Amino acid sequence: MKTVYELGKGAKEASRFLAVASTEDKNRALLSIASALEENCEKILEKNRIDMEAAKNSGINPTMLDRLLLTKERIKGMADGVREVVSLPDPVGRTLDSVTRPNGLEITKVSVPIGVIAVIFEARPNVTSDAASLCLKAGNCVILRGGKEAINSNTEIALVMRNAVKKVGFPEDCINFVEDVSRQSATDLMTLNEFVDVLIPRGGAGLIQACVKNATVPVIETGTGNCHIYVDKSADIEMAAKIVFNAKTSRPSVCNAAESLLIHKDIISSALPIIKKRLDEKDVTLHGDETSRKICPDILPATDEDWGKEYLSFDMSVKCVESTEEAIDWIYKYGTKHSESIITEDKAEAEKFLNNVDAAAVYHNASTRFTDGGVFGLGAEIGISTQKLHARGPLGLNELTSMKFVVRGDGQIR
Amino acid sequence: MKTVYELGKGAKEASRFLAVASTEDKNRALLSIASALEENCEKILEKNRIDMEAAKNSGINPTMLDRLLLTKERIKGMADGVREVVSLPDPVGRTLDSVTRPNGLEITKVSVPIGVIAVIFEARPNVTSDAASLCLKAGNCVILRGGKEAINSNTEIALVMRNAVKKVGFPEDCINFVEDVSRQSATDLMTLNEFVDVLIPRGGAGLIQACVKNATVPVIETGTGNCHIYVDKSADIEMAAKIVFNAKTSRPSVCNAAESLLIHKDIISSALPIIKKRLDEKDVTLHGDETSRKICPDILPATDEDWGKEYLSFDMSVKCVESTEEAIDWIYKYGTKHSESIITEDKAEAEKFLNNVDAAAVYHNASTRFTDGGVFGLGAEIGISTQKLHARGPLGLNELTSMKFVVRGDGQIR
Repeated sequence: MKTVYELGKGAKEASRFLAVASTEDKNRALLSIASALEENCEKILEKNRIDMEAAKNSGINPTMLDRLLLTKERIKGMADGVREVVSLPDPVGRTLDSVTRPNGLEITKVSVPIGVIAVIFEARPNVTSDAASLCLKAGNCVILRGGKEAINSNTEIALVMRNAVKKVGFPEDCINFVEDVSRQSATDLMTLNEFVDVLIPRGGAGLIQACVKNATVPVIETGTGNCHIYVDKSADIEMAAKIVFNAKTSRPSVCNAAESLLIHKDIISSALPIIKKRLDEKDVTLHGDETSRKICPDILPATDEDWGKEYLSFDMSVKCVESTEEAIDWIYKYGTKHSESIITEDKAEAEKFLNNVDAAAVYHNASTRFTDGGVFGLGAEIGISTQKLHARGPLGLNELTSMKFVVRGDGQIR
Repeated sequence: MKTVYELGKGAKEASRFLAVASTEDKNRALLSIASALEENCEKILEKNRIDMEAAKNSGINPTMLDRLLLTKERIKGMADGVREVVSLPDPVGRTLDSVTRPNGLEITKVSVPIGVIAVIFEARPNVTSDAASLCLKAGNCVILRGGKEAINSNTEIALVMRNAVKKVGFPEDCINFVEDVSRQSATDLMTLNEFVDVLIPRGGAGLIQACVKNATVPVIETGTGNCHIYVDKSADIEMAAKIVFNAKTSRPSVCNAAESLLIHKDIISSALPIIKKRLDEKDVTLHGDETSRKICPDILPATDEDWGKEYLSFDMSVKCVESTEEAIDWIYKYGTKHSESIITEDKAEAEKFLNNVDAAAVYHNASTRFTDGGVFGLGAEIGISTQKLHARGPLGLNELTSMKFVVRGDGQIR
């Protein structure tokens, strides 16, 4: 079993090969991975059964258990995911800017790979192939560290991928997997500045905060989402009900699901019952302030904790506000800078909200559920960044690159 | 004296005002700062004399002393620097990308301010106004923490700037200065995740490494530069001598100065004496390998330490290499990913070097000294980033912004 240091060293070395690999070669390696996943399906499922057995015995919850489970169809889905990455344009070598200076120097800013990307994730084994294929297409070597629950599945998937890239002449070390599931190995990876160019944590708030706190390598925070929908006084109430219903209930476990509803005081007595009726179809539990509970007495009282909570379930907080300004202030206080939406027919109020709310995505008259690389038309993503540096919103292939200035002269001096 | 926490809180609050300030208003605030610096010149000089006196008594070296010194001309220079920022285009509100999706959603990616930028720097008081004005123009509040040597000068400059922005209706807390010069205040700032969006250290390698190691807020590393010039076998030797002379001697104390010379074995016996002769004009001390010392016996023997050293003086290491590949490997091992140049008449060798060397700027037939925001035509800069995330190379106004997705719909749900 290699140490994290050895994995880092190997990845760094392999990154020099991968950084200058052609698009054709990278696509060939990806297709090799896709085929290998399907060909080795039975082996992977066998290892997954070991993980599932152990997880059941440890009394893990059903949601986690479902995330851990692999089936023939899911492995087919992973292979198809890799093939989708083949079809995306190569993000490396794009000319981002170019200028010829008065002294004749030609300066071109081009996109280049980042180098070595570490990804720390939790129980879902499909992240192994998703993350590896996106990193590879962008010319980056990857060091993956998954949760211990999926250790057998992940180790096998990583082995299959390493063999697959080797088969087409790539160094195996383009893809690396940390088999050591101790806490120490995660800490080692977070502080491997010599070899790791960026760390992307994928998982819950606890994992992300641990990375932010302990990492000395640069981290791209991916997103917890306490997303709000603000229903303004001039909202189309039917539209508001439709959007709130979609944003809350279409997939409550994801980060772009809405968690909190703000309604303007002038409209709340008519709007809330209509919206609540829709949410009742899915048995959504509302946690509300005093005003909302006066209108709908079966709403539970909200505690202070509710306002900042990412429920990820069929729960939603609801609060009456005096104005768009109060909604903006409220979101500033409790939001997580992920996705925030205003429902209004008043363009000026909409623009005020769009300008003043600071989040990766701000919406007017649409569901927060759209914040997604594929849905935005940006292709597959490795996560949603909720921080301000490097990339914000969906982290697609372009966001997995850096840049350099290429300067061509004929003897210029300064 | 405010605590770092209080400064952060104030800055974050003020950043909501500054984020949506118009270009005109921001320029008015900058012009007010420029005038105030000139009007308060005598007061600032008075405080600077206190710092200079203390520094002299502490036996500080002449270079540091010169960096610390303010004069009427230097303050005029600071004011002019602020006015230059006024003339640069506003980096906020640029449309970076836009698309209308098949479902009618209009998605626009726009540049927005980062929020609160912390800058930790060393002795030079002019950084106070440089950094503050660039941050302000990009809509960001700044928290400045300078070296203790310049504490009186910096405190006064910050006060002058705070009053100047207040005069035109901006919150004073757009500009914040840490008066506490204890180590603890630096550590506090590095871990102020609640309020600080990014930390930019400006100074020597020690300061930068301390930030990388201790900060939990995102850091943009600015640059140490162990820059190489590789003279290929088909180089124009006269051009090589001219470029090496310029890159080494025009300003040895800056990060884009060349520190190391690599020469192809087929050309070294003719090229080295010619290049050395030029360097002798400025009494450059060469530290060389065996081959170079056979050719020019008065070259000092290089130690292992020399190869990785950023001299920042009239010293340069010199080494014979077998090929462009060896030069690339050498730079990979000892370079700091700042600026690297190849001198050759062979385009294929040049392209090989430009593609395979991983640095913020790679050059063909030009001096490394060009790596500079102003010289690249990008306007004033806050430093040179040598890391891969967010920004690489000169950190200008555009690099002091983040982005968000603004999505306009008419009721779309997913």
